[in-house]
Amino acid sequence: MTVSTNSDRQVQQLQELIQDINSGMLTTVNDDGSLHSCPMYSINEIDAEGRLWFFTSANSHRVSEIEQNQQVNVSFSSCEQQRYVSISGTAQLLKDRQKMAELWKPELETWFSQGLDQPDLALLQVNIKQADYWDSSSSYHPQTIKFS
Amino acid sequence: MTVSTNSDRQVQQLQELIQDINSGMLTTVNDDGSLHSCPMYSINEIDAEGRLWFFTSANSHRVSEIEQNQQVNVSFSSCEQQRYVSISGTAQLLKDRQKMAELWKPELETWFSQGLDQPDLALLQVNIKQADYWDSSSSYHPQTIKFS
Repeated sequence: MTVSTNSDRQVQQLQELIQDINSGMLTTVNDDGSLHSCPMYSINEIDAEGRLWFFTSANSHRVSEIEQNQQVNVSFSSCEQQRYVSISGTAQLLKDRQKMAELWKPELETWFSQGLDQPDLALLQVNIKQADYWDSSSSYHPQTIKFS
Repeated sequence: MTVSTNSDRQVQQLQELIQDINSGMLTTVNDDGSLHSCPMYSINEIDAEGRLWFFTSANSHRVSEIEQNQQVNVSFSSCEQQRYVSISGTAQLLKDRQKMAELWKPELETWFSQGLDQPDLALLQVNIKQADYWDSSSSYHPQTIKFS
């Protein structure tokens, strides 16, 4: 099962790159074509299928942008470690209570005070197509991880 | 001259928000619609016309993306200060040797070893349309600065 092994390695590699960075900047496309970004608390969750998960409010502006255009980028920056990660993919909203309970972390109460009972609570599922990263070893040129 | 004063205040406010953050993540649109980001060394230069400047290689992939689609986002993240800035605008390449000499900083030699003599050296001019920022005072909701 070469494909599976490769995929596992890719997921693990990307997980290690972002694991100590608390927030990512999610960039979405507005209906006039302009690009907007906003901070997202990172639960550092990439599953075996190459999906990155975030909690969001289902009523947020970014969600309406994603409903118009699924293309997103999530960037992670650690200036101290000179590590920068760009994740390109498509995003979709998911209101799966079971999955939310599985992924929930107590720190999220800072943004969602009612926890899992918050009515507009939802998940943002980013299907990763490609990740590029720059760190102190790679200098000016990025390393690329492609996802199938 | 109310407009001028407002503009000056907007520029100053944005300059203060990013002045101690060394790198921004520049997001561009690929010809297949996917979004990619890369780190850019910040010279912290926003001029009175609301333009943000970066040095780049004229032959880089991001430049060819910008030639196809001028829409860009630049995000600045400071986890320590819980400050996140999103700058939306359009970008264009400029090969103005005089402007480059004016904006050049010695730290840039890390990426452009030949300094101002590097043949493919160019400027990326981001015409700012809107900036959104989140900091410890604004909690979950962003503050917006619109540029005319």
